[in-house]
Amino acid sequence: IAELGFDATAAEKGGYAHFMLKEIHEQPDALANAIRGRLDFNLGTSVLSGMGTSPRELAEISRIVLVGCGTSLHAGLVGEYAFEDLANIPAEVQQAAEFRYRNPIVSRNDLVVAISQSGETADTLAAVREAIQKGAFVMSLCNVVGSTIARETSRGVYLHAGPEISVASTKAFTCQVAILLMMALKLGRGRRFSREEGMQLAKAIESIPDLVARTVRQSDHIAEIAARYAKNEHAFFIGRGPMYPVALEGALKLKEISYIHAEGYHAAELKHGPIALLEKDTPVVALACDIPGKDKTLGNVEECRARGARILGIITEGDHEAAAVMDDVIEIPRTHPLVATIPAAVALQLFAYHVANARGCEIDQPRNLAKSVTVE
Amino acid sequence: IAELGFDATAAEKGGYAHFMLKEIHEQPDALANAIRGRLDFNLGTSVLSGMGTSPRELAEISRIVLVGCGTSLHAGLVGEYAFEDLANIPAEVQQAAEFRYRNPIVSRNDLVVAISQSGETADTLAAVREAIQKGAFVMSLCNVVGSTIARETSRGVYLHAGPEISVASTKAFTCQVAILLMMALKLGRGRRFSREEGMQLAKAIESIPDLVARTVRQSDHIAEIAARYAKNEHAFFIGRGPMYPVALEGALKLKEISYIHAEGYHAAELKHGPIALLEKDTPVVALACDIPGKDKTLGNVEECRARGARILGIITEGDHEAAAVMDDVIEIPRTHPLVATIPAAVALQLFAYHVANARGCEIDQPRNLAKSVTVE
Repeated sequence: IAELGFDATAAEKGGYAHFMLKEIHEQPDALANAIRGRLDFNLGTSVLSGMGTSPRELAEISRIVLVGCGTSLHAGLVGEYAFEDLANIPAEVQQAAEFRYRNPIVSRNDLVVAISQSGETADTLAAVREAIQKGAFVMSLCNVVGSTIARETSRGVYLHAGPEISVASTKAFTCQVAILLMMALKLGRGRRFSREEGMQLAKAIESIPDLVARTVRQSDHIAEIAARYAKNEHAFFIGRGPMYPVALEGALKLKEISYIHAEGYHAAELKHGPIALLEKDTPVVALACDIPGKDKTLGNVEECRARGARILGIITEGDHEAAAVMDDVIEIPRTHPLVATIPAAVALQLFAYHVANARGCEIDQPRNLAKSVTVE
Repeated sequence: IAELGFDATAAEKGGYAHFMLKEIHEQPDALANAIRGRLDFNLGTSVLSGMGTSPRELAEISRIVLVGCGTSLHAGLVGEYAFEDLANIPAEVQQAAEFRYRNPIVSRNDLVVAISQSGETADTLAAVREAIQKGAFVMSLCNVVGSTIARETSRGVYLHAGPEISVASTKAFTCQVAILLMMALKLGRGRRFSREEGMQLAKAIESIPDLVARTVRQSDHIAEIAARYAKNEHAFFIGRGPMYPVALEGALKLKEISYIHAEGYHAAELKHGPIALLEKDTPVVALACDIPGKDKTLGNVEECRARGARILGIITEGDHEAAAVMDDVIEIPRTHPLVATIPAAVALQLFAYHVANARGCEIDQPRNLAKSVTVE
């Protein structure tokens, strides 16, 4: 028997030190797969045949409830903003366990969207079964083809993100958000968007793989910044509007793999309590891209600075006003405010990765965590 | 001029070391004031004349949006559960800054409830003005009589909690919750409650001052427990259902006055990330009262224990099953699951107070915080 001298795991990592880093870098391709063939530039809308609904059926939807757990819950929160702002449909996110145990209020005109990378998350599956009983439209957003949640929901859209091995989810999150944006485009097109407006958003969505590629190319720059935050045991992430769920997701990434106690907060809530915790050099990561609400977030950054916090800003490239109040900055390309959530999340994935790496953490298998939570 | 030998501030504290402790102890009286004359045991409902709506008007309400900031936001989250579970009306909570800047989706059949102790919170006031423009029913829940928010909303209910001096809100929170429960009783009585069911809930609400008095009497016991948690720099608070917002509020109290990085988490979310942070002796405060979902929360407690966390359980008195899996327990009286949120919150106020006291913190004026946030 000949030794192959070949490490199968290392090969699968394709030269990257960790699956997480590999999957972060795969995102331009994963997102291209998630988007390919799903935009219609003729009608200025999206084509999501898995939704299985005609424009006439879609017009019946009066409320959207998104259910999920963990990172999928954060993707759902971005979806909530997209559905309300683009399609003018009241939307809300419910933690899946809460939904299943609460005799939820859903009716026949409600659309319930279940989000799960694995398609096997126990609480989300139970929520799907509950929503079906209530007679709602039920749809899934899964990555694993043929998974239980995908099978039990008659309507659904697959992420096509490819297998995700790292416990900390990266490409599944960004693909979930991209598909939620396409769903909101489709619903918005049926309600208030003109063809021209639909076209503009479709173009912004089409550019996502390129926006993410430009963000991923900053990996070395982000590693330099991360080294300056690796010794802290606390961090706060703040954001407003659609950047609020990105703050939650950025904090969760850092928490999962670096074991830093990172907490995501709505920027407007900072003054109502957590600002008491800020000391000299407490890290605050501010989602301060140039979208509506930026000026208020910069105001919050000033308050944190006044307490001596060290501020890392995620800002729009070339925004000198925002850069001026930050200690460190990661720039993302200028785009539609909802689309900007995706490159911003990628920047925070890289930040979490490099902080954890600098701390010598076991990145792909963080302690106490499983890839998919198939028990309650 | 004769020296009076009289410390005005000490006198106002009525013999208590801090305003916060005084206000915690005032809660049985404050809650009695908030409830007095507002329950109708003949019709099995509540009388909240400030709501200014006939049963026929109330029947038009199809959705409830609660807006507030900080502690008031947490009271609103308990209200969300109450309105959905008791009155079967879809309800959601929005951070007031988010509501004001988002062109919110509200219509003429929506009830918007603005919650603010001071009645001067800038973001909440702006949200009120926005909701009025949208033609919604708009109501306020304020403590300060004649405050701006109370004046600008034509309908409202005052807390009657008496002046709150401590920056960390205590009695305002519990009175807000008590009034939200009475509102939900009134709305529930117009929809699905029989007179008998209304009567039972009214009786549970009437007992709140007594339940809280019994909890406050455990102050010395809670001080002993608190001493064992005073050296930690991190803590997690977990809960499900209506105890989830209590977990958020308990964490906020501890954060505000003790400067411990306490974070509130939905118990079902623990496994999706934050469990990675648990080490030997990391404090986890579990809201594990004997209400629906308790068994799942006890399951989460076991997972935390397996990672060496030190567990403080807030449990129902005499619940030996729950006590058996905790390192320390604070018992609250058995009552209706939604009413139980109030004594549970009081137990966590006392816990935060005694931890902060053991750490030598300046309790009534925590660093960086103002009593009411009247700027953005």
